[in-house]
Amino acid sequence: MYGAHDVRVETVPDARIVEPTDALVRVTRACICGSDLWPYNSMAPSAAGNRMGHEFIGVVESIGRDVRTVKKGDLVVAPFAWSDGTCEFCQQGLQTSCLHGGWWGGTELDGGQGEAVRVPLADGTLVALPVGPDHALMPSLLTLSDVMGTGHHAALRANVRPGKVAAVVGDGAVGLCGVIAARRLGAEQIIMLGRHADRIALARRFGATDIVSERGDAAIERVRELTGGLGAHSVLECVGHGESMRTAVGITRAGGAVGRVGVPQETTIPNAQPTFYGNITIAGGPAPVRAYMHELMPDVLEGRIEPGLVFDRVTNIDSVPDGYRAMNDREAIKVMIEF
Amino acid sequence: MYGAHDVRVETVPDARIVEPTDALVRVTRACICGSDLWPYNSMAPSAAGNRMGHEFIGVVESIGRDVRTVKKGDLVVAPFAWSDGTCEFCQQGLQTSCLHGGWWGGTELDGGQGEAVRVPLADGTLVALPVGPDHALMPSLLTLSDVMGTGHHAALRANVRPGKVAAVVGDGAVGLCGVIAARRLGAEQIIMLGRHADRIALARRFGATDIVSERGDAAIERVRELTGGLGAHSVLECVGHGESMRTAVGITRAGGAVGRVGVPQETTIPNAQPTFYGNITIAGGPAPVRAYMHELMPDVLEGRIEPGLVFDRVTNIDSVPDGYRAMNDREAIKVMIEF
Repeated sequence: MYGAHDVRVETVPDARIVEPTDALVRVTRACICGSDLWPYNSMAPSAAGNRMGHEFIGVVESIGRDVRTVKKGDLVVAPFAWSDGTCEFCQQGLQTSCLHGGWWGGTELDGGQGEAVRVPLADGTLVALPVGPDHALMPSLLTLSDVMGTGHHAALRANVRPGKVAAVVGDGAVGLCGVIAARRLGAEQIIMLGRHADRIALARRFGATDIVSERGDAAIERVRELTGGLGAHSVLECVGHGESMRTAVGITRAGGAVGRVGVPQETTIPNAQPTFYGNITIAGGPAPVRAYMHELMPDVLEGRIEPGLVFDRVTNIDSVPDGYRAMNDREAIKVMIEF
Repeated sequence: MYGAHDVRVETVPDARIVEPTDALVRVTRACICGSDLWPYNSMAPSAAGNRMGHEFIGVVESIGRDVRTVKKGDLVVAPFAWSDGTCEFCQQGLQTSCLHGGWWGGTELDGGQGEAVRVPLADGTLVALPVGPDHALMPSLLTLSDVMGTGHHAALRANVRPGKVAAVVGDGAVGLCGVIAARRLGAEQIIMLGRHADRIALARRFGATDIVSERGDAAIERVRELTGGLGAHSVLECVGHGESMRTAVGITRAGGAVGRVGVPQETTIPNAQPTFYGNITIAGGPAPVRAYMHELMPDVLEGRIEPGLVFDRVTNIDSVPDGYRAMNDREAIKVMIEF
């Protein structure tokens, strides 16, 4: 990406092993993320450009001499952040705060939207898949690299509990996966705030019990009507706009929690006083999806959840720029790239 | 209180039973709260004035016909908010969000800084004490009406855990009780941010292991030095200023939590982005001290905690205005009123 609305497919130097803890992965599936749309709409022009993509599945081509947990030929899924797996934060399952980890792409490292990636700290980062690269579950397994784990994180941080009310702000892929996660954790009523017919249909299929298509104060009022005037126990904020955060805290019941996973676009959190008087917890951040892979993968492999349904368009590497455009225009929920 | 710096002792109509769920309590001990200093410094002049005081112990003089759990002659402690004890929120221990509860004082109800109080919903509100009104533990028992329970709430919401690092922002009575609470919950390192010699001495007596007297960015840097560069797992925000909140989130470790109990003076919560990237939880609000009385009272009665040491001045009803002045000038940590 060279700037807003300027995505180019270019040949870059081949990815290669640099450190003994690296793995070289040939990408077989990748995708475009809702969070990629933030720079797609706002990035200042750059001569160097940024490599893009942080969600991918691929085949290990070679490993550095210190790598132990994956080997040549393994099909692996990568989380959207790489991590050592051993530091204080990784040990407690917060790999997105790894003391030695980092993020794909940018100017230093390969991105997932490319043919091959040098994966640092491969043992702490990659997870091997027990299926072949053309298995029908590839789309759902690919969501473990970000959106399904991120929806799960939102639900956990929003403290979703069996029999309680969850609400999801944002009908993108993460919000839709948040519906899956809320249902999986036992929420009885799941309210989706969204306006696009295709996304609403998918939300219902995933378990949403109520749809609220109003915006702002009208949305808050409607959620309160649906919850006996009290609001939702758990609110999953899956957008990151100031307005969506205001809605999220506005629909949270006293004593409830907002789990935020949308990258915040404002520097402050609104409603400091109402959230205080209501003892509302605000939690969340970049999901440690690496920690959730082992928990969520059996549900995918055994067909209990189908997050791969969020992919409603498949493209190849040459058409990635049009994939960005389609997602930005809300023509597609989420675009998968096949190599 | 008729306005900023305008506290008067006046005769008002006698408190009396109005509802069958009321109790009439003759106050024996009350106190001035750090939160009373917010209006003391900012209240617009008012012709009617506000009755003040939300922390008191007293003797039940009479009860309405539906009151079951307290009787005439009982010595009782009141939490800083009254509550029915039966609604959804009370049942889950969040009495400060009681659907039928409310707050002492103002223009409608008696305040604790007076000779007698009509207590609504007495069964859900009052807790009987197993000692007489002149028992040596009165100061510590009085803190169960607010500051000790509030410090405990901050520690719980900040997720204080055995062996971990807690930090307390604010060296007022609540912050000092927060030190007690953090130690009681097993924190190994307890860092007090404060600057007043008398308060620091008390913090150390209560269990603080480190004192940070810097402000702002220098305070953040110092706490990081004391915690291997990582910050505290749990931060108790016991002030409510924008600056103190910025410090609180600035010293919290990734994955940690801020338990805020200082009444927020700003409309937004700062650092939306750093707290997001660090998965820092922001929680807290008005403490449901009614829920904590039964847990904390044995520790007071058996001498394991001495929160009453926060009272460093005792006054009578006529000298309450000077008590406000003394607390506002930081001459006194907290003023107790004996009737």
